Amino acid sequence: MSTTGKSIFCKAAVAWEAGKELSIEDIEVLPPRAHEVRIKIYYTGVCHTDAYTLSGVDPEGAFPVVLGHEGAGIVESVGEGVTNVKPGDHVIALYTAECRECKFCKSGKTNLCGSVRATQGLGLMPDGTSRFKCKGQDLLHFMGCSTFSQYTVVADVSVVAVNPAAGMDKTCLLGCGITTGYGAATITADIKPGENVAIFGAGCVGLSVVQGAVEKKAGKIIVVDINNKKKDWSFKFGATDFVNPLELPKDTAIVDKLIEMTDGGCDFTFDCTGNVKVMRNALEACHKGWGTSIIIGVAAAGQEISTRPFQLVTGRNWRGCAFGGVKGRTQLPGLVEDYMAGKIKVEDFITHRYPLEKITTAFNDMHAGDCIRAVINMD
Amino acid sequence: MSTTGKSIFCKAAVAWEAGKELSIEDIEVLPPRAHEVRIKIYYTGVCHTDAYTLSGVDPEGAFPVVLGHEGAGIVESVGEGVTNVKPGDHVIALYTAECRECKFCKSGKTNLCGSVRATQGLGLMPDGTSRFKCKGQDLLHFMGCSTFSQYTVVADVSVVAVNPAAGMDKTCLLGCGITTGYGAATITADIKPGENVAIFGAGCVGLSVVQGAVEKKAGKIIVVDINNKKKDWSFKFGATDFVNPLELPKDTAIVDKLIEMTDGGCDFTFDCTGNVKVMRNALEACHKGWGTSIIIGVAAAGQEISTRPFQLVTGRNWRGCAFGGVKGRTQLPGLVEDYMAGKIKVEDFITHRYPLEKITTAFNDMHAGDCIRAVINMD
Repeated sequence: MSTTGKSIFCKAAVAWEAGKELSIEDIEVLPPRAHEVRIKIYYTGVCHTDAYTLSGVDPEGAFPVVLGHEGAGIVESVGEGVTNVKPGDHVIALYTAECRECKFCKSGKTNLCGSVRATQGLGLMPDGTSRFKCKGQDLLHFMGCSTFSQYTVVADVSVVAVNPAAGMDKTCLLGCGITTGYGAATITADIKPGENVAIFGAGCVGLSVVQGAVEKKAGKIIVVDINNKKKDWSFKFGATDFVNPLELPKDTAIVDKLIEMTDGGCDFTFDCTGNVKVMRNALEACHKGWGTSIIIGVAAAGQEISTRPFQLVTGRNWRGCAFGGVKGRTQLPGLVEDYMAGKIKVEDFITHRYPLEKITTAFNDMHAGDCIRAVINMD
Repeated sequence: MSTTGKSIFCKAAVAWEAGKELSIEDIEVLPPRAHEVRIKIYYTGVCHTDAYTLSGVDPEGAFPVVLGHEGAGIVESVGEGVTNVKPGDHVIALYTAECRECKFCKSGKTNLCGSVRATQGLGLMPDGTSRFKCKGQDLLHFMGCSTFSQYTVVADVSVVAVNPAAGMDKTCLLGCGITTGYGAATITADIKPGENVAIFGAGCVGLSVVQGAVEKKAGKIIVVDINNKKKDWSFKFGATDFVNPLELPKDTAIVDKLIEMTDGGCDFTFDCTGNVKVMRNALEACHKGWGTSIIIGVAAAGQEISTRPFQLVTGRNWRGCAFGGVKGRTQLPGLVEDYMAGKIKVEDFITHRYPLEKITTAFNDMHAGDCIRAVINMD
């Protein structure tokens, strides 16, 4: 019996309020309206951003909400006017939309799209309403994705079809962390052969910067992390050096160490920690005259970066990117092909797998630090 | 009688100690050694950087010293091995050297040259000694130029010959302020037709950014200054708009005003104030996704810039430049030709002219705010 045009009742992990554990609930998922797509989610990753919002520290976090933004699934049905995907397509949800019509999309200079930004920020669909109901109330959407539900509804500009031969337990991770790091190295930085790079923080994002740097034939690929367990991980993904700042001699700052290792500073550095002090170190470890530091990590609310302006006047560049600068609908299918061709490691990131009921365990694992990525089987 | 190989005795404005007025003295200028050039200075500009060092606020300022770094003159003699200029050449002194052999010069990515940096910072010639003597002691060099002397000695990498048909009272100003602003717009930013720009601070540098933006066919060229006297100046050089932040309604921040005027933010902003709070506004007034802010002004020692990292993660770029990104030996002769062809206004900047004995008056005028540039006739 077709579910098209009808509500679907399914399981979801609901965040009822800040600071509380997720709760597995039976929810109602309304049918997609015009230019909306309903997806049966098969797999979802669990990312630090989900934990950040759940913790309540995010001042823009609103509840109750269905979190999750790193998900893959199959299109169940589409609303009127949807032409970019059809039922049966294997898809990845996009927290960075791509409408191809707004000033941003047309600029050719950024992957940030303005089309659904305002409502996405409010946790609503573009028409200002929600498609989730539970216990008599509406649940908010999250980052335009809400992949912690067996079914979700997204805007058509927020979904892309990819090669169905790719396992969805892998492609879900291309919906955020891996693409963010890989894109930062290959698209935002566009590293040239032989350039020296340093990556601060060896989680999923940082290790993906490493593999992007390897793909672009970087010279030194130096990973900086205070957790020595990340050393083997770094070398596995292609790093040439690993530095633990806590193990440097007392009078050696990490900035000086990196400048020494690279004969003057790095061509590119990447912050994958979200720590504003690390962001400053990353900038100051750049080569005078041209070095560029790219902020990827998300800092806690209210925190600020700072440096002496002389650092910029003498030629360093401070930048940032979201989703690695990748245009989801245009470029993500190619990254899935690169994964299929063996150019991008994905399985290697999956350290933990859980069914939906155990999603809280996945959150706890993430905080423990020996987890790179937990994948949730939504079945 | 040739002066080649001999000391020259001449007048110079000597800064004996921080915070004291310059003193006109008879000094001895030793002959140039290998790879050095002795120049008879005809005209020199007076720049805020000279005043900053004289004030004693610059922690790297050292005394006694011959200040001045915006000078034009004629080569009197050259030391062994000098091939890029010869006696009789009309030249501009370069505080940003260009050796064409160091890692920086060869990179093709920056105009910063490493060849004489260390000794220049110490106020000495590349061999670690001074060519100035007065009252039995050595005087230090300044920024590799020391143009407040009727004769000076510079490294051969710190001087460039230009069209002798150009008046030296004009070309001296291409040694710093005008080139810094014009280059920031045309080389560092490389503004594209129709792009919107905002310039904070309408002194010599800021107004030269304006003329660079005009040359690059920018769209809106908005000057921001708290001094309404700069309004006419701004329009004279080609600005399309002038905003005095002090005259905005109380609930309107300058950042919001600029974002409104440009439908989302500026493609490029330029700080020409040296004020770190202004630098932040300049960054935050940039367009999300691609806007770039370029720091040109020199901040006071110890001051820091700051912002929320979200500003960069959402696609703004924070950069800076020195000498406008211009390679002195390679590109400055072309800028002199552009001046000769009427593309760059220079005379218009000269609001005051003084003989060397009145140089202190020129310093006082600069602080008064209705002076754009004072030119000192060294005769």
